[in-house]
Amino acid sequence: MRTGIATVCLSGTLKEKMQACAIAGFDGIEIFEQDLVTSPLSPESVRTMAADLGLGLDLYQPFRDFDGVTPDLLKANLRRAEAKFKLMSRLGMDTILVCSNVATATIDDDAVRAEQLAQLANLAGDHGIKVAYEALAWGKYVNDYEHAYRLVEMVDHPNLGTCLDSFHILSRDWDTAPIEGINPEKIFFVQVADAPKLSMDVLSWSRHYRVFPGEGQFELAKFMGHVVRAGYTGPVSLEVFNDVFRQSDVERTAVDAMRSLIWLEEQSAKWLADNAGNGADGAAAGGAGLRRRYPMELATLPKVNEPAGFNFAEVKADNTAQLEKLLGQLGFGFEGRHRTKDVQLWTMGQARVIINEQAASHAEPSIAALGFDVDSPVIASARAQQLKAPVVARKVQADEEVFQGISAPDSTEIFLCQGSPDGTAAWTHEFGEGLEHARSAQNAVIDHVNLAQPWQHFDEAVLFYTSALALEPQPFAEVPSPSGLVRSQVMETADGAVRLVLNLAPVQQANGPKTYQEHIAFAVDDLVATARAARDRGLDFLQIPANYYEDLDARFDLAPDFLATLRELNLLYDRDGDGEFLHFYTATVGSVFFEMVERRGGYSGYGAPNAPVRHAVQYDSLHR
Amino acid sequence: MRTGIATVCLSGTLKEKMQACAIAGFDGIEIFEQDLVTSPLSPESVRTMAADLGLGLDLYQPFRDFDGVTPDLLKANLRRAEAKFKLMSRLGMDTILVCSNVATATIDDDAVRAEQLAQLANLAGDHGIKVAYEALAWGKYVNDYEHAYRLVEMVDHPNLGTCLDSFHILSRDWDTAPIEGINPEKIFFVQVADAPKLSMDVLSWSRHYRVFPGEGQFELAKFMGHVVRAGYTGPVSLEVFNDVFRQSDVERTAVDAMRSLIWLEEQSAKWLADNAGNGADGAAAGGAGLRRRYPMELATLPKVNEPAGFNFAEVKADNTAQLEKLLGQLGFGFEGRHRTKDVQLWTMGQARVIINEQAASHAEPSIAALGFDVDSPVIASARAQQLKAPVVARKVQADEEVFQGISAPDSTEIFLCQGSPDGTAAWTHEFGEGLEHARSAQNAVIDHVNLAQPWQHFDEAVLFYTSALALEPQPFAEVPSPSGLVRSQVMETADGAVRLVLNLAPVQQANGPKTYQEHIAFAVDDLVATARAARDRGLDFLQIPANYYEDLDARFDLAPDFLATLRELNLLYDRDGDGEFLHFYTATVGSVFFEMVERRGGYSGYGAPNAPVRHAVQYDSLHR
Repeated sequence: MRTGIATVCLSGTLKEKMQACAIAGFDGIEIFEQDLVTSPLSPESVRTMAADLGLGLDLYQPFRDFDGVTPDLLKANLRRAEAKFKLMSRLGMDTILVCSNVATATIDDDAVRAEQLAQLANLAGDHGIKVAYEALAWGKYVNDYEHAYRLVEMVDHPNLGTCLDSFHILSRDWDTAPIEGINPEKIFFVQVADAPKLSMDVLSWSRHYRVFPGEGQFELAKFMGHVVRAGYTGPVSLEVFNDVFRQSDVERTAVDAMRSLIWLEEQSAKWLADNAGNGADGAAAGGAGLRRRYPMELATLPKVNEPAGFNFAEVKADNTAQLEKLLGQLGFGFEGRHRTKDVQLWTMGQARVIINEQAASHAEPSIAALGFDVDSPVIASARAQQLKAPVVARKVQADEEVFQGISAPDSTEIFLCQGSPDGTAAWTHEFGEGLEHARSAQNAVIDHVNLAQPWQHFDEAVLFYTSALALEPQPFAEVPSPSGLVRSQVMETADGAVRLVLNLAPVQQANGPKTYQEHIAFAVDDLVATARAARDRGLDFLQIPANYYEDLDARFDLAPDFLATLRELNLLYDRDGDGEFLHFYTATVGSVFFEMVERRGGYSGYGAPNAPVRHAVQYDSLHR
Repeated sequence: MRTGIATVCLSGTLKEKMQACAIAGFDGIEIFEQDLVTSPLSPESVRTMAADLGLGLDLYQPFRDFDGVTPDLLKANLRRAEAKFKLMSRLGMDTILVCSNVATATIDDDAVRAEQLAQLANLAGDHGIKVAYEALAWGKYVNDYEHAYRLVEMVDHPNLGTCLDSFHILSRDWDTAPIEGINPEKIFFVQVADAPKLSMDVLSWSRHYRVFPGEGQFELAKFMGHVVRAGYTGPVSLEVFNDVFRQSDVERTAVDAMRSLIWLEEQSAKWLADNAGNGADGAAAGGAGLRRRYPMELATLPKVNEPAGFNFAEVKADNTAQLEKLLGQLGFGFEGRHRTKDVQLWTMGQARVIINEQAASHAEPSIAALGFDVDSPVIASARAQQLKAPVVARKVQADEEVFQGISAPDSTEIFLCQGSPDGTAAWTHEFGEGLEHARSAQNAVIDHVNLAQPWQHFDEAVLFYTSALALEPQPFAEVPSPSGLVRSQVMETADGAVRLVLNLAPVQQANGPKTYQEHIAFAVDDLVATARAARDRGLDFLQIPANYYEDLDARFDLAPDFLATLRELNLLYDRDGDGEFLHFYTATVGSVFFEMVERRGGYSGYGAPNAPVRHAVQYDSLHR
């Protein structure tokens, strides 16, 4: 698959964008006109630079408001087009995107449109240019890709074809199956964008909220499957207008973009294999013959299943005393120090926490790393690296387990560990033995981990965990906090063994205290007993306001004894049709706190109605 | 008018919110339930604190999903309601907001709803509580305020009335005139919110994008006029869900909120005066009798007309050499130093620029102040102060003009100056005479000023200039820049004599260069001559890329000589149906640059199509 990206997806100057695209490994780019117009680079310099960087200049765009106009306007439009065709010759480009008319069309007649497009195609032919005509979702008269293609067929000129853009098609819920009926020689270009499903006018949705494939909710693999079955072999190019990407580091965004296409390529191949036999090209299709049967080659990736569970969580600090105290009070047992590294192992049942003492001077406690149980760490690491995840190296000595590590977008280190059927981890033998072991809560596990994401990298993180770790994004929620709404995105495995919550914190106030908190939650069988024991050990619980318990009672009509227990132990409670949820939080040290939870019945949530209470109390304790 | 605000409008804890509301001068507040539930304050403490702060506790809200439910659910809902009624007694509150059912209603029958609301009213009566029933814009069955009122009439119980919320009414485009027909004793509460007109689902619109009156596009004065004519005398309370306000400084937001109600009060009185005679209460109405004729008292403000023009602009720096050089090269004449202050006066025609040398050590050049010509500085200042604008004091000595100064939300100092029919300013005599005076460009004026606004204070700035200076907000635009989209809001007078552009810059990158630039634009009669003279004086023009002129030619088909002149002098060009616009920019010093413009014919814009070029070149020069 030939990969491409429009310069409008990225921040910076044209030169910075081109360099970032080359570093990320794109085959070609679309030049968004404004990026050229505002650039000090001459067209000839852009051409040379692209050649030096190994980037094809695949599409010049956009040319707007051409068709369905009065004769006077047509004349001006053809003049304007010719100027751009000449410019494209200097750039060495041969394909231009012409969007269906939004603003100046006054004649709603396919015959007139076809006649005008034929004049444009003739002119383009004189300059060796191909015109890719695209139906915008909000085009005045032409807003459906099948309509655009009908016009291309009417004109029947070698220099006129169509451009398929997934956003314009999927935002309108057009059926994508008819793509397979389009003559592949007439598909001059394919643009892909994903988007969250929003209920707003399609123009604003398109201009601000597009995201890279895998970061939204469109069925892009299916769209691409139809494109591949149509016989298309040209570039598959990202055109993503996004307010955040426009403000983010250009090189990182380009890498994120590339990751999305690599993932889309794999997902498209998978869709084709899963849907062999039900398409235009008959019943003989099968996964094995895929590469030979379609003109477009689809690269694949090392395959991974979703992780079986958390292997460990790692917290880091310059002074680890507070972390040790908290874990001890929660009932974790100290399993000893690593034989070669300055790290400690603390466990409760299968919940393993590493306390890393190798932090920078004065570094406050924070979550540094997460380990996941996978079938094969090497295969999973290979996949992640092909998906452009930066590798994290760990020093190892002889006989020590080699951890395959990659860096998540928020810089958390992700380690891919060898899972075991009984949930144990072989590497724990590298830690000292003969120390006190906790006997309580043998069934304890890491229930979920909540990571705060910087606003620039939230969508990137969703794609990272989807593509590299096979976690499934759930619908996102918004949680009120005293310093703003917190966007909360759950990523989890189908069986709930791994649950990761990505929180987009409100923008930090310049002079305010740090509100950027993360936590690790552990599940136990008996939360009340765990809480009592922790209290007896002197744990500093997050103090829940009395008002909360009154409201709880008003909502759930709880037994007085039970309510009293909740209140006494600062426990929070939630209930839904599937079951019940009890939990409590510790005070925060640095940017970390811990949570203990008990799930009763089939409850699969996170106590979302209680999150505002947690935020408010934490805010209050920071501001007091 | 009794003023109020819902705690959900503000950031922080309940205590912080209440304190900020008291400082801002509100009469009462609505307690948003979540703010109480998450607070460590007992209901009794909240009651005492409110009394100490002089704040009424006017509304407890919201109580959701009560009506149109099955008998089982009704029973649970009544139990839940009773718990809240008891809580309200402890708070000393007597009115609760009940929203029309969104989630749990299954019975769409007014008789059933009325019967269930009657049971609620009876229970409320037992506890001395009044229930204000409100139609949510997205209520499952009840989403129209007239429908909600019909139910209130059907029940006909002293403890059941309705709540009118401008958002729920205006977002659905419901006619507001029938409000006048509602029995005022049955209007238990009125909530006001403004909003920009957005095309999106009404729930998201309501939850994220509400703004304070005067910051959006709703016809709130008319809404309030109908409420006043209905005979309502209760609180008029802000209920504004806004993502930015939730993150902003609580005290500033409360003051901004109060300003919006003061302004709305004046605008409502004005609407009533302007529309006397066409309403429900007959033809005898008149502005003079207003206060006596309606039960609600509406306070007025000192009246001002829109400013006649800019009086001066002031730039400030520790080292002012670069500013002096730039102004000199542009053709400004140095008019001397002030006789008592370390400031210089530079003029070109009626365009006056003060260079202030009294900046902090190492302070880079920036725009510090703007002077506006008003009919009466004292009246305008009184109005601004009643609208909570902070006063700026200037030291004056005998015989010097006293400037009335207020501080804008971005800290720019705004001076209200005595205008003169010929556009001169008396205070210029305080500056030294006998120095070189510019003879060129005698008709030069300040054309517009472009100020960058911090994201927390953008909406506040719109209301500030609307209410204190009588500028009119125009529809906002979005301009692409290499570091993100720039939201641009023009505020101007009807005659265009004062044009202020508020730009919301993209969030600053932690490690990026400062992109926060502001500028002052001067209009001259002959831009080409001005540019040539400036070039001869060695001005450092913002260098416009050659690609721009090619695109300009493709778009406008310009005469070759004219195009060559534009290119030679780094001039930008725009044209619309009304006229033409020529302009150029200087290089930036500190955070300031200057622009020179020439308006031909009736062109009233700002060369918006050229703004991306300006942003890109400025970005490029910062990043090189």
